[in-house]
Amino acid sequence: MPLDPPAQTGMVLADVDTPALIIDLDAFERNLRRMADFARQAGVRLRPHAKTHKSPEVAKRQLALGACGVCCQKVAEAEIMVAGGIDDVLISNEVAGARKLARLAALGRRARIGVCVDDLGNVEELEAAAGAAGASIDIMVEIDVGGRRCGVAPGAAAVELAQRVSASKHLSFAGLQAYYGSAQHVREAAERAALIAGAVAQVRDTVAALAAAGLAVKVISGAGTGTYEHEATSGVYSELQAGSYVFMDQDYARNRVADGGPFQSFEHALFVYASVMSAPVAERRVLDAGLKALAFDSGMPVPWQVPGAVYLRPSDEHGNLDVSACDRPPARGDKLLLVPGHCDPTVNLHDWYVGVRGLAGSKPHVESLWPVAARGALF
Amino acid sequence: MPLDPPAQTGMVLADVDTPALIIDLDAFERNLRRMADFARQAGVRLRPHAKTHKSPEVAKRQLALGACGVCCQKVAEAEIMVAGGIDDVLISNEVAGARKLARLAALGRRARIGVCVDDLGNVEELEAAAGAAGASIDIMVEIDVGGRRCGVAPGAAAVELAQRVSASKHLSFAGLQAYYGSAQHVREAAERAALIAGAVAQVRDTVAALAAAGLAVKVISGAGTGTYEHEATSGVYSELQAGSYVFMDQDYARNRVADGGPFQSFEHALFVYASVMSAPVAERRVLDAGLKALAFDSGMPVPWQVPGAVYLRPSDEHGNLDVSACDRPPARGDKLLLVPGHCDPTVNLHDWYVGVRGLAGSKPHVESLWPVAARGALF
Repeated sequence: MPLDPPAQTGMVLADVDTPALIIDLDAFERNLRRMADFARQAGVRLRPHAKTHKSPEVAKRQLALGACGVCCQKVAEAEIMVAGGIDDVLISNEVAGARKLARLAALGRRARIGVCVDDLGNVEELEAAAGAAGASIDIMVEIDVGGRRCGVAPGAAAVELAQRVSASKHLSFAGLQAYYGSAQHVREAAERAALIAGAVAQVRDTVAALAAAGLAVKVISGAGTGTYEHEATSGVYSELQAGSYVFMDQDYARNRVADGGPFQSFEHALFVYASVMSAPVAERRVLDAGLKALAFDSGMPVPWQVPGAVYLRPSDEHGNLDVSACDRPPARGDKLLLVPGHCDPTVNLHDWYVGVRGLAGSKPHVESLWPVAARGALF
Repeated sequence: MPLDPPAQTGMVLADVDTPALIIDLDAFERNLRRMADFARQAGVRLRPHAKTHKSPEVAKRQLALGACGVCCQKVAEAEIMVAGGIDDVLISNEVAGARKLARLAALGRRARIGVCVDDLGNVEELEAAAGAAGASIDIMVEIDVGGRRCGVAPGAAAVELAQRVSASKHLSFAGLQAYYGSAQHVREAAERAALIAGAVAQVRDTVAALAAAGLAVKVISGAGTGTYEHEATSGVYSELQAGSYVFMDQDYARNRVADGGPFQSFEHALFVYASVMSAPVAERRVLDAGLKALAFDSGMPVPWQVPGAVYLRPSDEHGNLDVSACDRPPARGDKLLLVPGHCDPTVNLHDWYVGVRGLAGSKPHVESLWPVAARGALF
């Protein structure tokens, strides 16, 4: 049974039940525009990653500002995006297993669908699935530019895959997937720049090897919120896959601060709203948001505009808040906003986005309730 | 929209789509019986924590074996348990906020409902809510026996709260909540024993102070899977709240091994089933289960019966597996079982339990599909 939302539209923020996933709509819309403007000015396509938001409502707003489509990581996410009206989806990931391949191919009849490959056998499977479904699928050959996750080595292995794809009947060789995931979260700006420079060189070599084999590369796609300026100005990448910029989490913000901040490009637009459920001693408050309401893989959430308050540690349903340095610590029953350490897995814990207008003003109120439509869409 | 299950009943395990949350029904049923037998023999009540499983199906099986009811952490969980036929629920947690208190009181008209308090103002709020709803609510006074989370100090503060509850019209003083959360995960058996011995002493003192004030304590409730033997044999605790024993995760298992194992009391009965989606180099496999399919707060998941395979690190939708020490590393497309580091937040990421019979045998098959009914029930 779907869960009820923690709010109704028109409600003031203070009446929203907790824990709740809040979008600051004003900041969110500014973030959307900033990245769209950047991509336009840089002359690259923007294909934002929908794994961040899992919402066709958000995706539609990205497309309205010029995005060419979205990325997903899972077939189930892509199904939900297509059902929600998005007609161009790249699964920026490998897909294995007969059931998933059949679903992917079926989707290829309803929308423009792309997927990544890093294995010759997978190309055969995709060709068979697309043929059986009477569909066509765009294929991106994924090369490992340093992330050490999926992807073949740049160069000859990529050429072999692209040739196999090109020789297929139902598959089109669309380009290269060259995403450097682990570079996104490196703290030092110079180190991030150097890592992407290395990726760019590997992409360039692979493009040259493909050209020597008579294969043109239409799209070179990659980049995330941590490094997108480098890919955009590389002269090689033609498509950006950044996702987190819409919401901006604490981890990416720390990088921006490390870059010599103040944090400039994007604003925190996503929060978890939490209540103080217990105030047992002067220095401690216990929040009703722990491991099941927030992701902790990139560090603790940070209380928003509660000077001195430090989120010390979670348990499953509790957050332990140190308020010993607070001049005015929140009282039992008070509510506060938390900036998640990592947005994507935090979003995946919630069923609803509560869109708040005027968050920075004196009377923030609920303007929209959007389902996190692809929450839990794991396969 | 609710997500489809990743399996159908009757299907062989290998056909289940991934990632999927698997119950080994044979091991699960043995775990249920072991804890029920233990509690009966120890002469204490068992009120298992439903925050682990979030499923009335599991709760009903616990009650059928003698459990007196269940614990929940959230009003929304309690609502789902009561809707699923469970008629005795203790919210082993404080509840703050008018909307939640009204829902809690409404529940008190439909089932036996208890809740914890650690604040005099909260007692007043509960009394008002219960009065408005025409309901009665059992109140457990929570004391902090060392966990440094919620709860008043043992002794006088607890007596003051109990007196206020006893003087209320719609509330009943039911007993003491004395759960030592952080002791559950201490590695050393002797240290866990010492911590619970300290808790027992504080409970004993508080009971004496309550008796001196003319207040009888009906129930003393606490304990988790890490320490329950100590509470059960303390002569003071009368009710066990352990939850994880039904599934047993890697973290608790490590404690059992540290105790001089092999692991004896409970078996791993919960797994995440994952596929190898990429095999880009000889030493690496990439699984389709990362931060959105597994919880990592208590360490990495452990591949089950894949000797030499080590889950190195997750990203949002990927798991990086080191197979350099495997004699027979899994191939692309193969599926394997992972034992979660921490069951409770892992369960909360999934919509369905796929119950498998004969997992240890030659032809494991899907016997049941149970919704994780209270998944995401945060408020």
